[in-house]
Amino acid sequence: MKIVHDQRHALHDPKNFLVSGAPKPNPEVPRRAEVLLEAALAAGHQAVATEDLPLDYLARIHTPEYLRFLETVHARWKEIPGASAEVIPNMHPRERAAGYPASVVGQAGYHMTDTACPIDGGTWQAAVAAANCAMTGAGLVLAGERRVYALCRPPGHHAYADQAGGFCYLNNAALAAQRAVALGARVAILDVDVHHGNGTQGIFYERDEVLTVSLHSDPIAFYPFFVGYATERGTGRGLGYNLNIPLPKGTGDEAYLKALGKALERIAAFRPALLVVALGLDAHEGDPFQGLAITTGGFRRIGAAIGELGLPTLMVQEGGYMNAALGPNLVSFLAGIDPAPGLA
Amino acid sequence: MKIVHDQRHALHDPKNFLVSGAPKPNPEVPRRAEVLLEAALAAGHQAVATEDLPLDYLARIHTPEYLRFLETVHARWKEIPGASAEVIPNMHPRERAAGYPASVVGQAGYHMTDTACPIDGGTWQAAVAAANCAMTGAGLVLAGERRVYALCRPPGHHAYADQAGGFCYLNNAALAAQRAVALGARVAILDVDVHHGNGTQGIFYERDEVLTVSLHSDPIAFYPFFVGYATERGTGRGLGYNLNIPLPKGTGDEAYLKALGKALERIAAFRPALLVVALGLDAHEGDPFQGLAITTGGFRRIGAAIGELGLPTLMVQEGGYMNAALGPNLVSFLAGIDPAPGLA
Repeated sequence: MKIVHDQRHALHDPKNFLVSGAPKPNPEVPRRAEVLLEAALAAGHQAVATEDLPLDYLARIHTPEYLRFLETVHARWKEIPGASAEVIPNMHPRERAAGYPASVVGQAGYHMTDTACPIDGGTWQAAVAAANCAMTGAGLVLAGERRVYALCRPPGHHAYADQAGGFCYLNNAALAAQRAVALGARVAILDVDVHHGNGTQGIFYERDEVLTVSLHSDPIAFYPFFVGYATERGTGRGLGYNLNIPLPKGTGDEAYLKALGKALERIAAFRPALLVVALGLDAHEGDPFQGLAITTGGFRRIGAAIGELGLPTLMVQEGGYMNAALGPNLVSFLAGIDPAPGLA
Repeated sequence: MKIVHDQRHALHDPKNFLVSGAPKPNPEVPRRAEVLLEAALAAGHQAVATEDLPLDYLARIHTPEYLRFLETVHARWKEIPGASAEVIPNMHPRERAAGYPASVVGQAGYHMTDTACPIDGGTWQAAVAAANCAMTGAGLVLAGERRVYALCRPPGHHAYADQAGGFCYLNNAALAAQRAVALGARVAILDVDVHHGNGTQGIFYERDEVLTVSLHSDPIAFYPFFVGYATERGTGRGLGYNLNIPLPKGTGDEAYLKALGKALERIAAFRPALLVVALGLDAHEGDPFQGLAITTGGFRRIGAAIGELGLPTLMVQEGGYMNAALGPNLVSFLAGIDPAPGLA
C-alpha cells in the first residue's frame, strides 16, 4: 500500500500542554510519526512523498482569519512580555458570533478551544505539510489507488473550520474529503480515533454530501466532553448525515466490532465514492489515554470489516500515542483492510 | 456612609492564574479588601456586618448546576492525579447548548470561561459571603439608606448565570439588583470597572427591568475581548436595555466624564428605583492593568456626576488592584457621590 508521509512534521514539537491546570509533557511527539513510518515500511508498504498543493486548498475548509492566525500567531505571541514559549490560550468566547478581537491573546482564545493545542515556531509549516499529505493521499485514491494511508502529523480531527484543539490545527481528513467533494463525489468519513472527531463533525454538520461517523469513548467523561453525543445528528441539509456512537470506557474488541457494524451499515447506505478513515490508534488497550481497550488483533478485524465495504479508501492518521504496540497496531489495521496488497 | 463588609473574603486566596500561557501571581489578593476597608473607616464611614441570607437567593441569578459546581468542584478536583492545587480549566465548549459533561474537567471548562478564575478550598464560602454582602447592601438601600457601599470580594461582574471568569464567581451586583427587582422595582446597573461587565450584561441581556450600562477599555485589545462592543444592545424584551461605551486605552478624566454623561442620561431616562454602581477602581492611572487613566481626583468627579442623578444608590466593589492609590481612590469616589454624608 502507498504510505504518504512528510518529514516536515518534525518542525512541530511543542514541549508542554496543560492538563487539569498543570503543565505536562506533550504526548503528541515527532517520534510517533517515525515509529509509524518505520513499522509500515518494515511491513512492506511503499513510501510516497507529499505533494505541495496550493495554499488556497486550505481555505476550502478553514476560514481566512483562522489561517492567518495560525500562520502569524507564534511570532506575535513572542512579543508579549512574560508569555509562555508556546501559544496557550487564556480566555474563550462564550459565543463565537460576537466581536473578533485584534489582540493576540483574544485571538488565541477565539481560535484555540483548549490548552492541548500548543503552537510553536514550526506548527504552521508542519500543519500545512500534514494537510498536503492527506490531500496527496486523496489525489492518489481519486487517481485509482484502492487503499492509501496518509501519515499525517500533527493530526486533524479536533480542528474546526476556525479553531484548533486537542493536538490538531488543520483538519487533514476534512481537507482530503473536500478534494473529492470538489469533483462532485459523495464522501463518508469514519472516525475510529478514541476521541470524538468533533472538528470534522462541526465542519460538515450542515452538509449532506459528506457523511460523518465517529465511534469513540463516551464524552460524558472523556475529551471532548461537550460534543460527541448520540443525539447530534446534523442540522439543516445535514440532518441525518452525522452519526455518533459513544462507547463506554474500556470497551473491547467484541462490543466495538458490533458497534462498528452499525456504522458501516449507515456508510454503505450512503453510497459514497470515497471513504476517508480518520485512523486514530489510541483506542488501543495500551494507549496512555485509556479510553477504549482494542487489542492489536482487534485493529486487524476493524480494518477487515471496513475493507469489506469495498470502497476506495484513504486512511488519515489521527491520534495514537507512544506505547509498545503503536507500530504493530498500524500494521495490523493495514493488513486487515488490505489483505492482499499486491493484488490491489 | 454605611460600608457593608465580611471578613470571610480572606478564605478565598488562590495563588496563581495563567496569563499568556504562563503561571503568574494572582493580583486579586485578600489585602485589597483590607486596604479598602481601612481607607473607608479612616475617612469616617461606618462598618456594617453582612447578613447571612438564604442560599436560595443565589438561585435567582445563577443556575443550579453552576451553584453545585462552585460548591463541590475543589474537593472533586483534588482527587485528579497530578492536578493543579487550584481549579484551572482546560477545555471549553464551542457551543454551550450541547452536552453537559459529568467529568469534573469537562465541567470546569463549561463553567469557567478563562484561566483567571482559579478556585481554591475557600472560594465557595468567600463568594457566598460577597454575594450576601451585596444583597445586604441592597436591603439597606431598599430600607431607606440613600448611599451604601458593599465591600465585596471576590468581585462579581464577570460572572454569568452559569460561568465564572476574571476573578469573579457569583455576580454580586446582579444579585443585589435582583433583590430590588423581586419587589417590583426597576434597577439600573452602571459598571465603571476598567473591564467590561460581561457577566452582568449576559445575565440581563434579555430583560427590560434591569438596564445595564458599562464604560470600559475597548475589548478589541483588552479583557474580555469577545464582548463589550457598542453594537451589543440587548435582545428580545431586553433590546435597548444594554449600553456599552468602550473607551480607547489610556482615556483620562475629561474624555471619561464626557462619556459618562451619556451613560447617565440613559439611566435618568430609564427612571430606575435603584442604581447599582459596579465600582471597579482599576480604571485608575496607577492600576496594574493599565486600561484607562483616571486620576484619584477624577474618581471624585465621577462619583459626583453619578450622585447628581439623585437616585438611591448601592455601590458594589468590583476590580481595582494593589497600588498606592487604591484606598484614596475609594475615599475620593465616596466623597464625590455623597459630599454631605451626615445629611443623608
